[in-house]
Amino acid sequence: MQDRQIRVIGIGTGDPEHLTLQAVRALAEVDAVFVLDKRAETADLVEIRKRICAAHIRKPHRVVTVEDPPRERRPADYGATVEAWHAARAARLEAAFATELEAGQVGAILVWGDPALYDSTLRILDRISARGRLALSCAVIPGLSSVQVLAARHGVPLNAIGGPVLITTGRRLAAGWPAGADNGADSVVVMLDGDPSFADLDPDLTIYWGAYLGSPGEILVSGRLGTVGAEIRRVRAEARARHGWIMDIYLLRRL
Amino acid sequence: MQDRQIRVIGIGTGDPEHLTLQAVRALAEVDAVFVLDKRAETADLVEIRKRICAAHIRKPHRVVTVEDPPRERRPADYGATVEAWHAARAARLEAAFATELEAGQVGAILVWGDPALYDSTLRILDRISARGRLALSCAVIPGLSSVQVLAARHGVPLNAIGGPVLITTGRRLAAGWPAGADNGADSVVVMLDGDPSFADLDPDLTIYWGAYLGSPGEILVSGRLGTVGAEIRRVRAEARARHGWIMDIYLLRRL
Repeated sequence: MQDRQIRVIGIGTGDPEHLTLQAVRALAEVDAVFVLDKRAETADLVEIRKRICAAHIRKPHRVVTVEDPPRERRPADYGATVEAWHAARAARLEAAFATELEAGQVGAILVWGDPALYDSTLRILDRISARGRLALSCAVIPGLSSVQVLAARHGVPLNAIGGPVLITTGRRLAAGWPAGADNGADSVVVMLDGDPSFADLDPDLTIYWGAYLGSPGEILVSGRLGTVGAEIRRVRAEARARHGWIMDIYLLRRL
Repeated sequence: MQDRQIRVIGIGTGDPEHLTLQAVRALAEVDAVFVLDKRAETADLVEIRKRICAAHIRKPHRVVTVEDPPRERRPADYGATVEAWHAARAARLEAAFATELEAGQVGAILVWGDPALYDSTLRILDRISARGRLALSCAVIPGLSSVQVLAARHGVPLNAIGGPVLITTGRRLAAGWPAGADNGADSVVVMLDGDPSFADLDPDLTIYWGAYLGSPGEILVSGRLGTVGAEIRRVRAEARARHGWIMDIYLLRRL
């Protein structure tokens, strides 16, 4: 019996033209699209995803939503609870594959940005493989990440000449500037920062900030952090209130 | 008078299907393709570039090679010499734009991978802008970088859950493992390592190595560094001898 084929397809950051030709080809023969955790997607993003599917999937296809299991917010045993929650997510997706795909058919999971960066899809598929109950043949199609769209829209390189680039999260940055003398990371890209305060950062850093990258509502601000930091916080709060959500990212450089 | 339009287009790592739809559209109306430092491109890469241009540029167009100025290898004043060399590169490209493009025409520079990562094109264009002699309107089209193609082909995430990713060079890694306690970078991507020795690294790291990513000659090796490190060095030396060149990259993870 043929394996079910699962394609994890990076679709970029909100511009349907971020799709690669490889992604277009991978979408063409899809039988079912699996949407994980639909609650995380806003109406705007759902609309772009639908538009991509309509434009590129050439077969009649199903869209299958796999909701996340309920998550206990204040568990007594945190580690065991998170583990059980991840296991339940994998079981739900596995059940959806088994029900909605026949052997040899092609399922797709569309991932915003690149599937390799701050996305849980590959880990869930690994769990399904480890369970060993359903034979899957998985392929990953890389997509443009917000990291590179940010740099492109500002027209700047990520790295200083020969220098490293650290991609990190707002939570980690809040614990302190990561560039110790031992790594010389003078370019830091910060993702998933729910409330950038910039308060503890060197005001002489240069910041390149972007929100809704690639979409019609795209906003870009750049400059000396001490000069534009407050403006970014203001613009960000306004945009978030207007859209009801925000996706943003920033690059900090010592120049 | 209209500006000359310059499009810096990321074309991915060697698979013509790495092109995004945005890149395809950006290429369609190109009047001239500017090739910088042709000596750095092997016959294989020149062939893929030609194929991309033939497939996607819809107008009759010119291909203009802009050779790098000769570089003094042992200058008495290193800083001043490098500065003069960069200035000469910018002057040559500016002269090519002025000669080969009319006002309002579109020039393209095709960049392997992503223009924001370890590529000098954006810095050269900045120099031309700073000279202020030729009015250019520049746009950057991001492309898949070898970083993400590596992760996709191995089917692994770049980051540990919520963890950072450091992108660095072989030369910097040779100076020591960058993950100090102060940054917790437990995922390190190493680019531009001309001779990976792995000798000073923890043998319990997991390595994901790839060469010629996306092309028919692609090679992938992964495993515990202490176990597969010698194999990677052997495979790499053989492939380099066979092709006459190698482009490779690796991800190191503490797992």
